[in-house]
Amino acid sequence: MDAALDVVGIGNAIVDVIASADDAFLLRHGMPKGAMMLIDESRAQAIYAAMGPTVVTSGGSAANTIAGIASLGGRTGFIGKVRDDALGAEFRHDITALGTAFRTPAATSGPATARCLIVVTHDAQRTMNTFLGACATLGPGDLDAGLIQSAQVTYLEGYLYDQPLAQQAFQEAAAIAHAAGGKVALSLSDVFCVERHRTAFMTLIEQHVDILFANEAEAMALFEADDFETMLLTLQGLSELSAVTRSAAGSVIVSRTERIAVPAAPVARVVDTTGAGDLYAAGFLYGLTRGAPLRACGDFGSLAAAEVIGHFGARPQVRLDELLAARSV
Amino acid sequence: MDAALDVVGIGNAIVDVIASADDAFLLRHGMPKGAMMLIDESRAQAIYAAMGPTVVTSGGSAANTIAGIASLGGRTGFIGKVRDDALGAEFRHDITALGTAFRTPAATSGPATARCLIVVTHDAQRTMNTFLGACATLGPGDLDAGLIQSAQVTYLEGYLYDQPLAQQAFQEAAAIAHAAGGKVALSLSDVFCVERHRTAFMTLIEQHVDILFANEAEAMALFEADDFETMLLTLQGLSELSAVTRSAAGSVIVSRTERIAVPAAPVARVVDTTGAGDLYAAGFLYGLTRGAPLRACGDFGSLAAAEVIGHFGARPQVRLDELLAARSV
Repeated sequence: MDAALDVVGIGNAIVDVIASADDAFLLRHGMPKGAMMLIDESRAQAIYAAMGPTVVTSGGSAANTIAGIASLGGRTGFIGKVRDDALGAEFRHDITALGTAFRTPAATSGPATARCLIVVTHDAQRTMNTFLGACATLGPGDLDAGLIQSAQVTYLEGYLYDQPLAQQAFQEAAAIAHAAGGKVALSLSDVFCVERHRTAFMTLIEQHVDILFANEAEAMALFEADDFETMLLTLQGLSELSAVTRSAAGSVIVSRTERIAVPAAPVARVVDTTGAGDLYAAGFLYGLTRGAPLRACGDFGSLAAAEVIGHFGARPQVRLDELLAARSV
Repeated sequence: MDAALDVVGIGNAIVDVIASADDAFLLRHGMPKGAMMLIDESRAQAIYAAMGPTVVTSGGSAANTIAGIASLGGRTGFIGKVRDDALGAEFRHDITALGTAFRTPAATSGPATARCLIVVTHDAQRTMNTFLGACATLGPGDLDAGLIQSAQVTYLEGYLYDQPLAQQAFQEAAAIAHAAGGKVALSLSDVFCVERHRTAFMTLIEQHVDILFANEAEAMALFEADDFETMLLTLQGLSELSAVTRSAAGSVIVSRTERIAVPAAPVARVVDTTGAGDLYAAGFLYGLTRGAPLRACGDFGSLAAAEVIGHFGARPQVRLDELLAARSV
C-alpha cells in the first residue's frame, strides 16, 4: 500500500481549559478523580466559574494523537466536528498548524465547539468534565472517504461511542479503511466509557480493529479480568496487535506471538498526565507506519508521552521530531 | 496605614497566545528576539496563521504581577481595559479567580481585547507581538480612586506609556495613591519602551515613584549607562528603593543605603522566560507589604519567578503560597 497519509484520526474536536486545584475541589464538585464526565453547557459554565486561572489549549483524545504524529513528522488527517466559533477556529488552527489535513466543515448552527474543563490535582492526575457541544453531531455524513482511503491507519477514539451517530460512523469508517487496504486502530479512552459500551466495543474489536490501545484499567474493565496475566491472555486471543500502557511502569506490547515490555521515558517532573495515552499512541503509530520494530514503536510512544506530561495540556509544546533527533544523537 | 489591599496594579489587560518556534521563524517575520513589538489586528492575524499550535493564557505585565501576589495570598486589585468579548471574559475569569478585585468595566464598542502573540525559541527566550486593542483606550476616566486609596502600593506598568491617555492616568493615579498615604511602584517593562519614553520615565520616577523594578538592560538604557556600577550609583541617587533583575544571576536590591545581591531560585528546566520579571515583582511586593526584610522580599521574588519560567505562560500554574509553605518546611 503506497498511502498518502500515515494516520487519519476520527474523534472529538475539543478545546481543553485547564486549572490546578486540590482534592477538596473535586469532592466539592462531585468529580471522581481521574475520570471523564460528560456535562451540559450550564454545568460547564458553573465549573469554569469555580475554577482557578486557566490555560487553554486544543485537546481531544484522537486529535492529540494526530497532533503528536504530525509533530513527529508523520502525514496525518483528522475528522471531527467543531462549530464556526472562536474555540472552533482555535482547534482548527492548532491541528492544521503542523500540516494535518482537517477538512470536516464547521457546523454553522447548533451547539458550540466542545470544551473539556480539566482539573489537575497536585499528584498530576487529571479529572475531566466534557461539554461535547458540536462533537455530538458527528455522524456517517461527516466521514471523508478519500481521507480514510489514503491513510495506512484509521484511528478511532473510544470516547465517540458516547455519541449515538458515531458508532455507525465507526463501522462505516472501518469498512472504508479495510476495503482500501488500510488498518484500523482503536483507543479505549476511559474506564467508564468501557463500562458503558463493553459489548459494543467487543464486537467492534472482533469485527474491525487491527490495533488496540488501552491503559491497564481499561483493558481489565473490557474483559472484566481479575488479574493482569488473564487480561493479557484474553487480549492476545482477541486482537492482532495491542499496546497496554501502565503509567510510570511503561507499556506492554502484545501481538499473537510476542509480549514486549517497554519502559517509560524519564520526565524531570510530571505536571499533568492529560494526554499521556494519546501521545503514547502517537509515537507507536508513527513507528508502526514507518515499519519500525515493535520495541522501537513502544519507545517512540514513551518519548512522546514523556514530553506531554511535563506540562499543562495534551499537545506537544515542542516539535517531537526535534526531540527524537536530539535523543538519537 | 491600615490598607484593605496590599497592591493595586494598573496595566494592559492582555491574553497571551504562545507557541514555540525556531530562530528562523523570528528572522522570517522580522521579529527582534526578546523584544515586545506593537502590531495591528491584521498583522496579529497573519502572525497567528503562521504560528504553530498555541497555548492561550491570561497575561499582561502588571496583571501577571497582581496574579502572582494574589497567588501568594496577598490582597490585590487591578485596573485595565478589556472588550466585552470571549478573550475579555477569559482575562476577567483568570484575574478574579484568585480573589483580585477587577472592576474596570469592559468596553462595549471599539477594538477587541488585547492579544500578545508570543514566540518562545529553544533558548526559552520570548519574543512578543502585542495587539493592544481595547487597552489603548485606558485613560484617567477608568481609574478607580477607591481601589487606589485602599492599597498600600499602586503598581504601574511601563508598557502603558505607549498609550497616549495612560501617561495622564499614571500621574493621577500616583497623586491619588500618595494623598492616601500609599506608595507608588513602577516597572520599566522593556528596553525599547524605555528608549521610546526615557525623558517621561525619568520625570515620572523623580516626581512619583517610590519603588522601581527593572531588568539590567532596561536600567542601563534608562540612564544610558556604560557599566553596571555607574547604573547602580545613578539608580541609588534617583530612587528610594529599586530591584534590578539579572536573569540567572538573580537580582540586586538597591536602597539609599544598601545593596543586596539575591540569587535566582533553582529551576529544573527553563521553558519560557515570559513573566519572569513580573513574578519577581510579585514576590518582592508581597514581602514588602508584609513588612519582610528586603533580602526576604528578593527571595520571594526569585521563588515566584522560578515557578513561572518552568512552563509556557506568565501566570503561576500552582498556588505560590503552597510553594512558599513547602519551601519553608
